[in-house]
Amino acid sequence: MSKLENDTLLRALCRETTEYTPVWLMRQAGRYLPEYKAIRAKAGSFLTLAKTPELACEVTLQPLRRFALDAAIIFSDILTVPDAMGLGLYFAEGEGPRFERPLRDEKAILSLPVPDPEIELRYVLDALRTTHAALGGRVPLIGFAGSPYTLACYMVEGSGSNDFRAAKTLRYTRPDLMHHILDVTARATTAYLNAQIAAGAEVAMLFDTWGGNLAFDDYPEFSLRYAEQVFAGLDRQARGRTVPRILFTRHGAPWLDRMPGSGCDAVGLDWSSDPRTARTGIGARVALQGNLDPTCLFAGPESVRVSVRHTLDAFGPAPGHVFNLGHGIAPSTPIDSVETLVEEVHTYSRALRQTG
Amino acid sequence: MSKLENDTLLRALCRETTEYTPVWLMRQAGRYLPEYKAIRAKAGSFLTLAKTPELACEVTLQPLRRFALDAAIIFSDILTVPDAMGLGLYFAEGEGPRFERPLRDEKAILSLPVPDPEIELRYVLDALRTTHAALGGRVPLIGFAGSPYTLACYMVEGSGSNDFRAAKTLRYTRPDLMHHILDVTARATTAYLNAQIAAGAEVAMLFDTWGGNLAFDDYPEFSLRYAEQVFAGLDRQARGRTVPRILFTRHGAPWLDRMPGSGCDAVGLDWSSDPRTARTGIGARVALQGNLDPTCLFAGPESVRVSVRHTLDAFGPAPGHVFNLGHGIAPSTPIDSVETLVEEVHTYSRALRQTG
Repeated sequence: MSKLENDTLLRALCRETTEYTPVWLMRQAGRYLPEYKAIRAKAGSFLTLAKTPELACEVTLQPLRRFALDAAIIFSDILTVPDAMGLGLYFAEGEGPRFERPLRDEKAILSLPVPDPEIELRYVLDALRTTHAALGGRVPLIGFAGSPYTLACYMVEGSGSNDFRAAKTLRYTRPDLMHHILDVTARATTAYLNAQIAAGAEVAMLFDTWGGNLAFDDYPEFSLRYAEQVFAGLDRQARGRTVPRILFTRHGAPWLDRMPGSGCDAVGLDWSSDPRTARTGIGARVALQGNLDPTCLFAGPESVRVSVRHTLDAFGPAPGHVFNLGHGIAPSTPIDSVETLVEEVHTYSRALRQTG
Repeated sequence: MSKLENDTLLRALCRETTEYTPVWLMRQAGRYLPEYKAIRAKAGSFLTLAKTPELACEVTLQPLRRFALDAAIIFSDILTVPDAMGLGLYFAEGEGPRFERPLRDEKAILSLPVPDPEIELRYVLDALRTTHAALGGRVPLIGFAGSPYTLACYMVEGSGSNDFRAAKTLRYTRPDLMHHILDVTARATTAYLNAQIAAGAEVAMLFDTWGGNLAFDDYPEFSLRYAEQVFAGLDRQARGRTVPRILFTRHGAPWLDRMPGSGCDAVGLDWSSDPRTARTGIGARVALQGNLDPTCLFAGPESVRVSVRHTLDAFGPAPGHVFNLGHGIAPSTPIDSVETLVEEVHTYSRALRQTG
């Protein structure tokens, strides 16, 4: 087993007892940090940053120098996978991500390849190797990918969208083609996450950002089923340790009780989900991660303390909680709020364990 | 009691037996209709259309000429109320709604007035009176307002937003001021809906478009409580008939079981909510409205038939279901899909009642 100074996150994800509640933040490496903005400006573009292993490593480590976070998460983007499949990812100035060649016809869909991660996604794996070495076992390193459904939404639509109309229309008109995209993407994602695990990722997380835009009966068929396919193909052990899996579906509250069936070890909750119901329900089967409203960080340190305590009280001191936001941290979030958050999670959760 | 040829909607909202499932569509008067686009172009702006009673009446009636809908809903906008409160509603070209004077300081918040609907919102009431007369009792006329929380989001933010950061920050830093806005807005909304009922509205609906952006514990305190305040103040009877109330919260799945406590007669479900769970749960206390995914209308008539039947099967034939979309109809929705939807709801729900 490789050395790990702080394995609190891994133990919490396996629902083992920990001395305090571990904490990391979705998008903890990002635009709220001046040192991130500086390196991002120097790199010239987001993609240069993501595709240069030394720079990706550097921004992954930046938040750990400021805050006592219990994990690092590799700096990357979920759309690297469709990019590696040949769709041509780019960022239009002032807009979100776009693809040069979105999937709009049957021929393109049926010829979609499963990329070899050590070739087409080597820059991510190099970033993981560099970061894993640089961390030197201080905290675990989280690897991640987009869920097949979330990737399919972008791949068909060609960009972000309010309603992903093109993607949803394909689901209704040609469910067979949608399932084909999802299957190929699930295979690509499995290979990609296994390569991340081999390169140093100690946790594997699936971000299902758009699963919550599905009709109730469609989520199990078009999103959860492919998360399950990915988890079923993942290596369970690496470097002598279990590699826990986290599944996060934004607006996933209607399907929380089904998510443990996917084979994940932990379910991420957004801030509209009820921690108490989740703890007494699926909390018997999986760990839970979440779920502070990220906008509360704009209200200043004192308000953050109140909200952190409220969230920790709601989850309670039993094993199996990882503190996080309910969504990614926003670009202009005040740094002192983040500092207060991390500190308060550690202090208050230790106290809770003594009194609770 | 005033004459009403088709009272199927009213009976379904009161959970009485009906011969078929009544249907209307959120945003049924709108940009997918060429006759709407023509009148909108002639009017020059959305606000001119909304503020001219004869034009608002005309576009309210347009979808009823094409489709066998079981209700009309007055053409208007939820932001007329903050406009009447002095915030200055306008639409920037190609963008969404904006306010000239968003609520950004304590003084503005504390001096927020409750408008007299017969003065500041007279154009809506005139549109209702004209439309009620023009309908001649053919189908019921639905009046509506935004929920106090949804209005407060726009009023503080000054526009639509991905995260309503300014509004949420006020909730965290100065909950007292947020509650003040919500209380004043609830009183304004109560007076407005009562005036709509007096002017001819036979159903009162609250659109809680942004309630779903609240943290789990915040929804009851910041959204539902003020919906309850509005419903508690509404006239229960008009023209010899009960005026049913509908509450719709987008992304409201986490709180469905609490909504009947607001005093509504029906809860609107978005398409991610489970009709079966709702029927066996809150369906014992309230009627349910919903919940077809509006993007399925882009997939053509045959696909629409399948989806309509799937939805009707999920709700089942018991009394207390009003068919609707799970969100507003999209601008470029094909008209033949809408025609198929309405026809299939009527045909298939009649058949279900005979076999079920």
